[in-house]
Amino acid sequence: MSFDFVITNAIIVTADESDTVVRDGALAVSGGRIAAIGPAADLSGNAGKVIDAAGMILMPGLINTHCHAADSLFRGLIEDLPLEPWLQTVWKAEGAILNRETVRLGARLGFSELLLGGVTTVMDMFWHPTETVGAARDVGLRVSTGGIFFDFPGMDKHGPERRVRDAEAFFEEFGADPMVLPGTFPHGAYTVNPENLRAARDATDRHGGLFCTHAAETKAELADIESRYGRTVIRHLEHLGLLDERAVLAHCVWLDDEEIDILARRKVTVAHNPMSNLKLASGFARIADMLAAGVRVTVGTDGAISGNDLDMWMALRMAATMPKATTLRADAVTTAQALRMVTQNGAEALGAGERIGSLEVGKEADMILLATDRAHAVPMFDPMTHIVYSAAKSDVRHVFVAGEQVVRDGALVKSDLAETLAAVRTLEPAIAASIA
Amino acid sequence: MSFDFVITNAIIVTADESDTVVRDGALAVSGGRIAAIGPAADLSGNAGKVIDAAGMILMPGLINTHCHAADSLFRGLIEDLPLEPWLQTVWKAEGAILNRETVRLGARLGFSELLLGGVTTVMDMFWHPTETVGAARDVGLRVSTGGIFFDFPGMDKHGPERRVRDAEAFFEEFGADPMVLPGTFPHGAYTVNPENLRAARDATDRHGGLFCTHAAETKAELADIESRYGRTVIRHLEHLGLLDERAVLAHCVWLDDEEIDILARRKVTVAHNPMSNLKLASGFARIADMLAAGVRVTVGTDGAISGNDLDMWMALRMAATMPKATTLRADAVTTAQALRMVTQNGAEALGAGERIGSLEVGKEADMILLATDRAHAVPMFDPMTHIVYSAAKSDVRHVFVAGEQVVRDGALVKSDLAETLAAVRTLEPAIAASIA
Repeated sequence: MSFDFVITNAIIVTADESDTVVRDGALAVSGGRIAAIGPAADLSGNAGKVIDAAGMILMPGLINTHCHAADSLFRGLIEDLPLEPWLQTVWKAEGAILNRETVRLGARLGFSELLLGGVTTVMDMFWHPTETVGAARDVGLRVSTGGIFFDFPGMDKHGPERRVRDAEAFFEEFGADPMVLPGTFPHGAYTVNPENLRAARDATDRHGGLFCTHAAETKAELADIESRYGRTVIRHLEHLGLLDERAVLAHCVWLDDEEIDILARRKVTVAHNPMSNLKLASGFARIADMLAAGVRVTVGTDGAISGNDLDMWMALRMAATMPKATTLRADAVTTAQALRMVTQNGAEALGAGERIGSLEVGKEADMILLATDRAHAVPMFDPMTHIVYSAAKSDVRHVFVAGEQVVRDGALVKSDLAETLAAVRTLEPAIAASIA
Repeated sequence: MSFDFVITNAIIVTADESDTVVRDGALAVSGGRIAAIGPAADLSGNAGKVIDAAGMILMPGLINTHCHAADSLFRGLIEDLPLEPWLQTVWKAEGAILNRETVRLGARLGFSELLLGGVTTVMDMFWHPTETVGAARDVGLRVSTGGIFFDFPGMDKHGPERRVRDAEAFFEEFGADPMVLPGTFPHGAYTVNPENLRAARDATDRHGGLFCTHAAETKAELADIESRYGRTVIRHLEHLGLLDERAVLAHCVWLDDEEIDILARRKVTVAHNPMSNLKLASGFARIADMLAAGVRVTVGTDGAISGNDLDMWMALRMAATMPKATTLRADAVTTAQALRMVTQNGAEALGAGERIGSLEVGKEADMILLATDRAHAVPMFDPMTHIVYSAAKSDVRHVFVAGEQVVRDGALVKSDLAETLAAVRTLEPAIAASIA
C-alpha cells in the first residue's frame, strides 16, 4: 500500500474511545484520510513524503463548537459590561461596520487565529454565512455554519421573511461540500420568536442539518423567557420541539436539574464557553452535573468580542478545571473527559463523529502537531495530561485539514496573515468611531 | 545625557498610578535604571544602542507572587486529587527526588519558563532556598525567597531547631543582594505550629524581611485550624501577631467578611492563585470583595505540580475574569485593577514598590517587549485591555531585568533551555518511579 505522506516518530494521542496513545508512532494519509496508524517501525518507507515528527505530539485538530469569528473585528472595543447592555453596543458597532467584505475580513482574522491555534473545525454563527464559508476556505478550515435568524432586520437588512429563503439557499449551495457542515442558527429564544424558531428548525430538518442557538446564557435571559412564555429557556425550546441530537445549545449556564435531564434525554449538545461566561459575568455552567447526567458537552471560544481571543487551549483548560472548583471535587472532570470535549464530542455534535474527532483509520486527516521542546512541556509523564493542563496555542507547529497541510512551522500556508492584519488595522479607526 | 540603551517606537504601558500609556514612545536605560521615558522623537539619538520596538508593547515585567518553581519536576505526575491527599503524594515524590542538585535543576526549569513568559520577579517558597537563588541567577530572574519552615524534618533533613538558623543564614548571605528580596516562608498554619510561626516572623523582623505563608487555601484546612485552635485561619494568624504589610498570604480562598477587613486593616497582601485553586478544587477566592475592602491583591502561578504550568498570562486572565462570574458583575475587576495585580501590587507586596512594578524614571529596568503582529492582537483599541484579556506568553519577545537583557527573540540569553530540558528528561524515569 502506498501513502500520500507519513508522519513518523510522533507521540500519537488518538483521542479514540480507548484513549489510545502510540509512542514512537507513525500515521499514514491517503486521499485525505487516515490510512494507517501504528509503531513508526512498521509504517516507514511506504510514502512519497515522510514528515519526521520526533519529539512532537500528533493529535486530532481541536473542534470549536461556538464562535462568531467575524466579531474579532471588535476585539476589546467594549469592555466591562454584562451581556445585555454589552450586546446593544455590539449591535451598534456591527451595524455601522459590517457588510459582506468586512464579514469576510473579520472571519478570516478569526479563522487565522483558530487554525494557527490548532482548531481544524469550527461552528460559527454570523451574518452573511456564505462569507464565513469563504473565509474558512481562505485559510483551509472546516466550518459549520448557515442561515442566521433574528426577528428584527439584521446587518444584512433581511427581514424575518427572507430568513428561511436564505437558509435554504445556504443548504443548496453547501449541502454537498465536505468542508461545510450546514445548519440553521437562530440567535436565541429572546431574539427569535417561537414561530421563527420553528421555521429555522423546519428548514434544517428538510436538509438533515444542524440546529444551533444560544440558550440559558444569563440570569436575565432566563427571567426574560420565563416572563414571556411562562417557562424556563430549555423547557421553552423543548416545548417547541426543537431539541434533539442535531441541536447544539451554546452556553447553558442557568439550568435546573430537570433541564439537565431533558438535555441528556434529547441527546442535545451543550457548547460550553468558559471564557465568555466569565468575561461577561454570565456565571458558571454546571459542567460536572451535565457530564454525570450524560449530556454531550463540547467547548467553544465564543467570539473574540467577548473572549477576547479565540484560544481553544485556554478554553479547554478552563473547561477541565473550573468544574473542580465549583463542585470542590478534584476529579469533577477527568483528563479524558476534557480531551473528548474538544475532539470527538465536538465531531459528534456536528453530526460528523464518523468522519473527524479522533485519529482512526478511515477518518479524515484533521490533525495537529505540537512541539514539546518547551519549558512547560517537560517532564511529560502522560501526553493527555500535558494536552489538557499544560499545552498552549503556541505549541502548534503544523496543522492538517482533510490531509492538506494548512499551517506549517506556525504559519498559515494558504493565506497571508500579515495582509489580513494590515487590512484590519486600516479598518480600526472606523470601528473605534462606530460606538463613539 | 547619555544612556546605555534606548528602546524606541514602542507602545509604552507604564502601569504607573495614572495608567499612563505613551504611543510611539521611547525609554532610556542608564546603569540598570530607567533614565527617561517620553515620545520617541525626543529621546532618540542619545544612546550607544537603540532597540527599535516598532509594533511592540513595552511594559513592566510581570511579578509572580507565589511559586514553587522546583516542583516543575513533578508537573503532571499526580492528577485529579484534592489538596490534602495530593500533598501527601507530592511529599512522597519530593522526598525521593529532591536534593540540592535537583532543586537547582527544577528551579531552573521553572524560572526558565517564567522568564520566557515575561515574569521578571518571582516569590518562591521551596527547600534549599540558596539553590533557588542560584537558579534565579542562572537565568537572570529577580527572586524573593528564604528559609522555609515546617514542624517535621523536611527534604533537607533539618529539624525545626535548624530552621531559624537556616533562615538567619539566608538573610546574612543575600540581605544586600539587589536581585534577592529575602523573607521567611513557613509553609502554613496546618504544618507549622504557633511557636515556629512566631520564630519565623521574629527572624524576618530582625532583618526587615518578608513573611510568606499559605493561608485559608481549602475548606479542609479551615476546619483543621478551627478544630485545633478554635479560630479561623486568618484570625489565628492575626492572634499570633503575624500580619502586617510585610506579610504575603498565598490563596486566601476561605475568608469571611471580617477576615477580609482584618487583611485590609493590617495591609496584608493576598497572593491569588487562580489556576491552582481551580485544579486542586480549592474554590474561588473572593477577589472582588477583597478589592472593595482595599486588600492588596497580587497574582501567582503556584507550582507547576498543581498548575500545571507557570503561565502568568493565564493567571492574569483568570484573576481578571473569574470574579466577574462569581459576583455576576462584569466590572467586578477592571482592566487597570487586573494589570496592577501583576505589576505594582506585586512590587509593593515584596517591599519593592519604589524599585520595580512600573515603568517610571528612577526605577530598575525590569521590563518586557510584547509582539503584536499576532492574530489575537489585532485590532487593539486599548493596549491595557490587550494585555489583560488577550496577550499570551508566546507574545513575549524580549525581557530585561535591571536593564540586562535576559530574553532575546523568545530565547534565554544566560542559560541553555535545551540543556535544562535534557537534564530533566534524564531524571524523568526516577520521578515517575518515586510514587509507583
